[in-house]
Amino acid sequence: MLLHTIKEVREKRQEWKGLKVGLVPTMGALHAGHLSLIKKAKETCDKVIVSVFVNPIQFGPAEDFDKYPRTLEKDYELCTKEGVDIVFAPSPNEMYGAGQKLSNDTLTYVCPPFFYVNKLCGKTRTGHFDGVCTVVLKLFNIAQPDFAFFGQKDAQQAVIIKKMVKDLNVPVEVIQCPIVREESGLALSSRNKYLTEEGRKEALVLSKILNNIKSCYKKGITDIDALKETAYGFLNEKHDLEYLEILNKNTLEEQEKADDDSIALIACRVENVRLIDNMYLGG
Amino acid sequence: MLLHTIKEVREKRQEWKGLKVGLVPTMGALHAGHLSLIKKAKETCDKVIVSVFVNPIQFGPAEDFDKYPRTLEKDYELCTKEGVDIVFAPSPNEMYGAGQKLSNDTLTYVCPPFFYVNKLCGKTRTGHFDGVCTVVLKLFNIAQPDFAFFGQKDAQQAVIIKKMVKDLNVPVEVIQCPIVREESGLALSSRNKYLTEEGRKEALVLSKILNNIKSCYKKGITDIDALKETAYGFLNEKHDLEYLEILNKNTLEEQEKADDDSIALIACRVENVRLIDNMYLGG
Repeated sequence: MLLHTIKEVREKRQEWKGLKVGLVPTMGALHAGHLSLIKKAKETCDKVIVSVFVNPIQFGPAEDFDKYPRTLEKDYELCTKEGVDIVFAPSPNEMYGAGQKLSNDTLTYVCPPFFYVNKLCGKTRTGHFDGVCTVVLKLFNIAQPDFAFFGQKDAQQAVIIKKMVKDLNVPVEVIQCPIVREESGLALSSRNKYLTEEGRKEALVLSKILNNIKSCYKKGITDIDALKETAYGFLNEKHDLEYLEILNKNTLEEQEKADDDSIALIACRVENVRLIDNMYLGG
Repeated sequence: MLLHTIKEVREKRQEWKGLKVGLVPTMGALHAGHLSLIKKAKETCDKVIVSVFVNPIQFGPAEDFDKYPRTLEKDYELCTKEGVDIVFAPSPNEMYGAGQKLSNDTLTYVCPPFFYVNKLCGKTRTGHFDGVCTVVLKLFNIAQPDFAFFGQKDAQQAVIIKKMVKDLNVPVEVIQCPIVREESGLALSSRNKYLTEEGRKEALVLSKILNNIKSCYKKGITDIDALKETAYGFLNEKHDLEYLEILNKNTLEEQEKADDDSIALIACRVENVRLIDNMYLGG
């Protein structure tokens, strides 16, 4: 069922007392990556809620909030096919209140730790993770799920959400699901829709670099600079590299040497579309 | 029953499924003001939890965290007499994790809106309300109460907590209870213990000023500066006035004229003890 108001979701949640409820928070434009989260939720839970909300407070003023793809009808159809119980698609007014100015002058925010935020995507996307944590906590409080499902694709987000859950004693178990890739290796992303055919080919550079780093690590290279330098052979003038980092996968802290707890993370613009990807070096 | 761990409280809360649970968050050193909250909770709920936790992250480095009165044995006795079901008295390590550095570099915080914080007590107590909101949300997530009880004595805190609950869709109903005063008019406060006999007399200046403002308002004076100026007749060199404000009681916004939605708020040091008090002008 498609619900647009917080009140309706709360009422349904009341009816489901005693059942295991799963929440899959999304911004819509659902693809096979999201569907893998939904399938996992269906396996784990009695009832599944998928939220579809393009959250204004996690976009910077120069970012793609307005042009972010919105395909609710198709999203709802996909969810129905997967047996989702509720698709919760609120308006910004429903989530934040009509007339509410969206700023930390006037709104309570959840602010993840500076050491987790001030790197990778957080470095260029000021306030992004405050917006993410705030809306995720709101969705948790509205849906009151037992389990919540997040993709490994947004690796920094997943680490930050797990940290929030721990720090604030949120009574929700976070389940992290692997990245889904096209056969080409391209990680699925709603933003892939912005790319031309040519751009999709150039976008393979992200997974190629990560795969190569992983195979170098498997061959015994643990020097982080050496691993990162292997990327340069793949990059050309069509790739605008924003970051390439190798960090501890649980804490996102820098390491002296790569090890089985390392994760390689990359952000790169192709055709001015900002793409991210990551890969665990161990396992 | 006296519990010290989060796990035990969660287990009890599970057993109480379907019952109405009330939480009274305190820092201990319980007095008749707290007892009025507990009585109200007992009237409203099937089960009552009182938390006793002197929260390190809401004290500034120059504040009285170390010397804040700790009287757990007596608090527990008082709670038992009132029929409280659980007294939850965790250690800082239990609440924040052993070895966890308590800073926004390393810990997720709940940050109330700047416009609500940057006035009254928040102006001098930097970070205080971030610490309050963070611990209150943690306690809400641990105890999962249906109702939570706060005193009007900390008026700014009550407004900020209600704003947090609204902004973050926290599934808890906040109930605000009136200030309890001694016959002399002195508002009850755990910090009154710091005062000498002489200091307690001087401390009456807070309620005297507020009562006088209210009676001037009742006589028809609505000019805010005029109302505030009536205070000066009461103050002498033993009183170190920090603020005296007349604001909207729900939003803490400045008003052009006092009206029935106004609240007068005062903070004043006596014998270097920081005391606060407030009074609604309407009603």
